[in-house]
Amino acid sequence: MVVRQEQQRAQSPGGLQQTVRLFTSPSDMAKEGTEIAEETEQMIDQKEPDNPVSAVVDSKEMRAVLLTGFGGLNKLKVTKKPMPEPQRGEVKIRVKACGLNFLDLMVRQGNIDNPPKTPLVPGFECAGIVESVGENTKGFEIGDRVMAFVNYSAWAEVVCTPLDFVHKIPDDMTFPEAAAFSMNFVAAYMMLFEVANLREGMSVLVHSAGGAVGQAVAQLCSTVPNVTVFGTASPFKHEAIQHSVTHLFDRNIDYVPEVKKISPDGVDIVLDCLCGENTGKGLTLLKPMGTYILYGSSNMVTGETKSFFSFAKSWWQVEKVNPIKLYEENKVIAGFSLLNLLFKQGGCNQVKAAVQKLLSLYDQKKIKPVVDSLWALEEVKEAMQRIHDRGNIGKLILDVEKSPTPLMANDSTETSEAGEEEEEQEEDNDNKERMPFIQ
Amino acid sequence: MVVRQEQQRAQSPGGLQQTVRLFTSPSDMAKEGTEIAEETEQMIDQKEPDNPVSAVVDSKEMRAVLLTGFGGLNKLKVTKKPMPEPQRGEVKIRVKACGLNFLDLMVRQGNIDNPPKTPLVPGFECAGIVESVGENTKGFEIGDRVMAFVNYSAWAEVVCTPLDFVHKIPDDMTFPEAAAFSMNFVAAYMMLFEVANLREGMSVLVHSAGGAVGQAVAQLCSTVPNVTVFGTASPFKHEAIQHSVTHLFDRNIDYVPEVKKISPDGVDIVLDCLCGENTGKGLTLLKPMGTYILYGSSNMVTGETKSFFSFAKSWWQVEKVNPIKLYEENKVIAGFSLLNLLFKQGGCNQVKAAVQKLLSLYDQKKIKPVVDSLWALEEVKEAMQRIHDRGNIGKLILDVEKSPTPLMANDSTETSEAGEEEEEQEEDNDNKERMPFIQ
Repeated sequence: MVVRQEQQRAQSPGGLQQTVRLFTSPSDMAKEGTEIAEETEQMIDQKEPDNPVSAVVDSKEMRAVLLTGFGGLNKLKVTKKPMPEPQRGEVKIRVKACGLNFLDLMVRQGNIDNPPKTPLVPGFECAGIVESVGENTKGFEIGDRVMAFVNYSAWAEVVCTPLDFVHKIPDDMTFPEAAAFSMNFVAAYMMLFEVANLREGMSVLVHSAGGAVGQAVAQLCSTVPNVTVFGTASPFKHEAIQHSVTHLFDRNIDYVPEVKKISPDGVDIVLDCLCGENTGKGLTLLKPMGTYILYGSSNMVTGETKSFFSFAKSWWQVEKVNPIKLYEENKVIAGFSLLNLLFKQGGCNQVKAAVQKLLSLYDQKKIKPVVDSLWALEEVKEAMQRIHDRGNIGKLILDVEKSPTPLMANDSTETSEAGEEEEEQEEDNDNKERMPFIQ
Repeated sequence: MVVRQEQQRAQSPGGLQQTVRLFTSPSDMAKEGTEIAEETEQMIDQKEPDNPVSAVVDSKEMRAVLLTGFGGLNKLKVTKKPMPEPQRGEVKIRVKACGLNFLDLMVRQGNIDNPPKTPLVPGFECAGIVESVGENTKGFEIGDRVMAFVNYSAWAEVVCTPLDFVHKIPDDMTFPEAAAFSMNFVAAYMMLFEVANLREGMSVLVHSAGGAVGQAVAQLCSTVPNVTVFGTASPFKHEAIQHSVTHLFDRNIDYVPEVKKISPDGVDIVLDCLCGENTGKGLTLLKPMGTYILYGSSNMVTGETKSFFSFAKSWWQVEKVNPIKLYEENKVIAGFSLLNLLFKQGGCNQVKAAVQKLLSLYDQKKIKPVVDSLWALEEVKEAMQRIHDRGNIGKLILDVEKSPTPLMANDSTETSEAGEEEEEQEEDNDNKERMPFIQ
């Protein structure tokens, strides 16, 4: 079993506390379930010494994480894929870092509406350097440091994507920071400032305050005077994140009476990535003129008594809302899906505007993405396990140039499963895999 | 039958076109229905020459409009009431002008949830001069020109109301303008800028564009660069209001394909005071990240085939909304009730802030309430008929100091029904009538 024990904190010039930790051990990592635990063990036991992970030098190929079918961790492997080349309007990015989101776990299980076809390369965001550009890509040049939203296929050494989804990053922003920045900060920004209209003196409730979206929300709230942030998080995270929010509650207790003790009138904004049974609770907590936002690209509560994914699916079974009740109570209910906005609804200009505002805040050192940990592509399973176990504080990043951490003496060597027999067939489907339609 | 034919237009220094018209004739006023038409005729036929309308001089009494029970126009009369005196924290206002809203028609019919007890003095807004103040009314002095929100009882010569609901008005704002300003502009402002977050380049759909809220919405939209306003209105109003909105549609046609012809992606904000069957239509028209707001203190469509009030009631039967659909489509649905916010939910500070911003816009001559017509208290029935018939462009005002317009030679004289036998009994209930709890 892979064991890492590192922790470091850096105080940024703007006073933001950045927590970087690599912290994974058998005792910290409860498994998704017996079945998945067994898959993981089997995966770790496999030895494929003929496929060294850093051996890809052929410029006609690249390494990528492949999801061979929906299911457990054993459906993931690192493989070689044909090198993509940019089409008209596309930018080719040499990827340095990829973001890992809870949604990727949902995709792995096929636990989304109208799932795309497998095999596919997962991943919705990455950061790197422009390696070449197609025709009609004004504004981008080879060597530009960028971050990009990708409609699948981000977890690879090279990504080609339309320039509408590519954003230049500041010189002082690291690639892991950039990969941690795109989805979560944009989502947090658009929810707080465009959907909910956060203003001075308001209050915000955010779940999974220690997660990547939660930390982005906390930082963005701190850019507005006198905003109160209520957060829920696992108790073991409290010490690390207590300075980022105003009030912190154990995620295992009922937060409604706790919030009401402090603010009897409730809160102005509730950000909810939880399952159905909490929608009513969140609405109850809203002040008049308050906004409840249901979003879905982040962490999620794991049920104590139900199996993980059946619980996850119950997220979709939220109660319907009567508009007349909203009228009587002066309340707002909203849904927010950044990926739908980007890839199904043509919202890239709105996102571009949000990115510009966020980069300005970054330049002013008012925000700084919190990176939880860096993982090699080959460590994607452990990274997924960590996000599932809610072990992270901030963002999990796949560091494309990182080699897997050496295993402890008694452990088996974990290697890529690249180069298996079905490889050829998968390569035929490359285009379809790279850009399946997101659902 | 009362016949008035006046129309004037004033060009304000800020370039806003103000339309003031008094325009009521049998041919313009379709009746609410045969039943109500008969009530009106009966009312007009009554002669009570012993009750001259301007004879109230006793400072222990005041004139007020009384709703004796729920029903048709014949339930309204002008009567004498004991002079109210301000309690601690209250301001006593010598009323000059009162606003008439569609909601007042709903109240008259008892067509609201949990209607208050009758008899009562209707009316939710007025403007006038502070005549005296109770204890603890810092900030207000005798002689202040003010407008006020009142939880019923506005349609009277004198109103006492807590200072939280009273706002000073600029010297150059007339009392009819102030009475036209309070509910409609505050509602329009809070919906556009606090619920929906109107920004440069957005588009707005508003129904009853010629009504008081519609005209407030149009003016407020013009304070933001490059905002497109789609409005619906009866064809006869189009000439008068065409300059206030970008695109104007006949309210009798299906506006969805008309809007989509011009803007295939839809609009950013839909303001809907219509009945249930239109909620889905409005939601359909929303762009991603768009906001649909259901509000209820303004004009309303009268059904062509159903009786008026059964149709009005169907407003309450809107379809429930699935939050997952909002998530998938990136949409926002909101309800807004200014009266609930003020009188049930303690929102007076939020409203105060909105009033200050609006008065600043007024000072800059960017907005100017549109007054449709002025009516004596004794003409409240005709005023209600006019708002029911959608004859108005802008706000109907009860001008407390106005005498009823003399009738034409062949008409009966319309007078107050004040001084009827049940007067004494009603006065006993004065306090309860003045401030029943709004539902």
